[in-house]
Amino acid sequence: MDTRTNRQIVLASRPAGMATRENFRFVDSDVPQLKDGEVLIRTLYLSVDPYMRSRMNDRKSYVAPFRLDEPIEGGVVGEVVESKFDLLKVGDIVAGFLPWQLYSLAKAAELMKLDPNVAPITTALGILGMPGLTAYFGLFEIGRPQAGETVVVSGAAGAVGTVVCQLAKIKGCRVVGIAGSEEKNEYLRNELGVDATINYKVGDIRKALQEACPDGVDIYFDNVGGEISDAVIPLINKGARIPLCGVISIYNNLEKPDIGLRPQGYLLVKSALMQGFMVTDFAPRYKEGVAELGKWLAQGKLKYAENIIEGFENTPEAFLGLFKGENLGKQLVKVV
Amino acid sequence: MDTRTNRQIVLASRPAGMATRENFRFVDSDVPQLKDGEVLIRTLYLSVDPYMRSRMNDRKSYVAPFRLDEPIEGGVVGEVVESKFDLLKVGDIVAGFLPWQLYSLAKAAELMKLDPNVAPITTALGILGMPGLTAYFGLFEIGRPQAGETVVVSGAAGAVGTVVCQLAKIKGCRVVGIAGSEEKNEYLRNELGVDATINYKVGDIRKALQEACPDGVDIYFDNVGGEISDAVIPLINKGARIPLCGVISIYNNLEKPDIGLRPQGYLLVKSALMQGFMVTDFAPRYKEGVAELGKWLAQGKLKYAENIIEGFENTPEAFLGLFKGENLGKQLVKVV
Repeated sequence: MDTRTNRQIVLASRPAGMATRENFRFVDSDVPQLKDGEVLIRTLYLSVDPYMRSRMNDRKSYVAPFRLDEPIEGGVVGEVVESKFDLLKVGDIVAGFLPWQLYSLAKAAELMKLDPNVAPITTALGILGMPGLTAYFGLFEIGRPQAGETVVVSGAAGAVGTVVCQLAKIKGCRVVGIAGSEEKNEYLRNELGVDATINYKVGDIRKALQEACPDGVDIYFDNVGGEISDAVIPLINKGARIPLCGVISIYNNLEKPDIGLRPQGYLLVKSALMQGFMVTDFAPRYKEGVAELGKWLAQGKLKYAENIIEGFENTPEAFLGLFKGENLGKQLVKVV
Repeated sequence: MDTRTNRQIVLASRPAGMATRENFRFVDSDVPQLKDGEVLIRTLYLSVDPYMRSRMNDRKSYVAPFRLDEPIEGGVVGEVVESKFDLLKVGDIVAGFLPWQLYSLAKAAELMKLDPNVAPITTALGILGMPGLTAYFGLFEIGRPQAGETVVVSGAAGAVGTVVCQLAKIKGCRVVGIAGSEEKNEYLRNELGVDATINYKVGDIRKALQEACPDGVDIYFDNVGGEISDAVIPLINKGARIPLCGVISIYNNLEKPDIGLRPQGYLLVKSALMQGFMVTDFAPRYKEGVAELGKWLAQGKLKYAENIIEGFENTPEAFLGLFKGENLGKQLVKVV
């Protein structure tokens, strides 16, 4: 009999507007028993991501909603502690999409085996994982940056934004990052080589954008929507591309209409494109994306920032902090 | 010495909001003298189009603004009355982009010679001209209709909308047209084979759209923007495409922000595309478009409606009528 105790974080209630600590509940349970073809994984790192907020509504947006009283799910890196599958051994490190709990069963096909010698294992949740791939496909497939173009990135200091900024620099673009603190903006300029930054919490964002984008905006990689986008869109150039990666309104609920500047007039007179996407649209090409990002990472052309909170019990706080702009780069929870 | 008198319509003042009769002025002048390589054209038909309103502002939108006290320009069909160019003879019928005046000089390279035996000459301003090409490239290149998909068309009874509706039917789509009168909607259903129509001036457009689009909206061909678009966008399906062809707000002025529903959240969760375009983006492919449209026209698969006002002096009224929803199909002025 297994003497270990499992612990889960379940969705206790659906938030109205901003999520709060009360929407989560910790539940103790037994460690599950293995069947053939399965492995038991001890969770090492959990990923908390803004898109998860939309799954807390009871209405489908990207993907199915989380169920009440069942564990939240997300990106996880863990260690195999038992195995009934030949190709995964005890001690192997894997990444997968798993419940927020200390121990999870998984089928091998749902997991990706990581090589800690190639890159730190946490990168599977960040620059070499969903956020990095989101930046890669959104910028290259929808944004299609050309050398000399001006690329504006909102949410520039986040897990996706930091990668977008660097990829656009690799392609020879002028990059303007928008973030919510001077500390973040200094990081963007000094560490990631971003050409100009704007702190949207200080001063007139429209004026700051006009100064930072004297030749207009060719690509607007939008991680936030709302009033920040209202300020950027009037500056787009002929043929501009706007990959839509995140919109604050959907984290609340599309039941409540998102009222602001309609972009249609600007898109029309500039023959410009706005394209929503999610990284799973590009699932057949993940391998290509990881290989390319890994190459630049190995060459030192890509840097990454992680914000790691320790302790499984602090997972709800780590998640809630995303919406207060607390993280610079990828927000992770180190479980043990 | 030429005893004929020329007459022009010039931009007398720039409208604030809706254009009015006072923004236009008639001016008499001499008929111009030919140089080598030129022809003199007597105007037979003038095209009035909604996009021309945006050129009446002093700010560039699609194209350069009209100049004060100079003639309005637009699509014209005329007859060659003098020629100093070998390949155009007196009596030839041509189409071109020319000033609103009774007689115009033009270089042959700026004109397209029409064959009245192939199609009525007015079609060069409608279904085989800019409106038809706008429908063709916007629907096929951006909308990319697939059989069985639902296509919603706003401004469905206009010069572009009537062609979009029919092209979508040719491709096997379910077509839902939005127009502003029961007369227009009857025409769309009974003459053009549109599956369902909505009169946006009567009843609850949201409810009507839900009933007309039980499987959601795959393509929204948007000729109007504004509140009609606010009602359509929440119904889009995964992977929807929204070609932006006209936006009422730009006919007034983008100086005044166009406030309403931000579409970003819907585009994001549906991985949907919104793309502004103008027909000139596809100029290298006009020949292909005219050939395809001409083929369907000859086969009786495409019909067209024209609303012809007689008399050059009624041109301003014909233009202003576009914004009152007076025209079904292409609005033309017959000069003589």
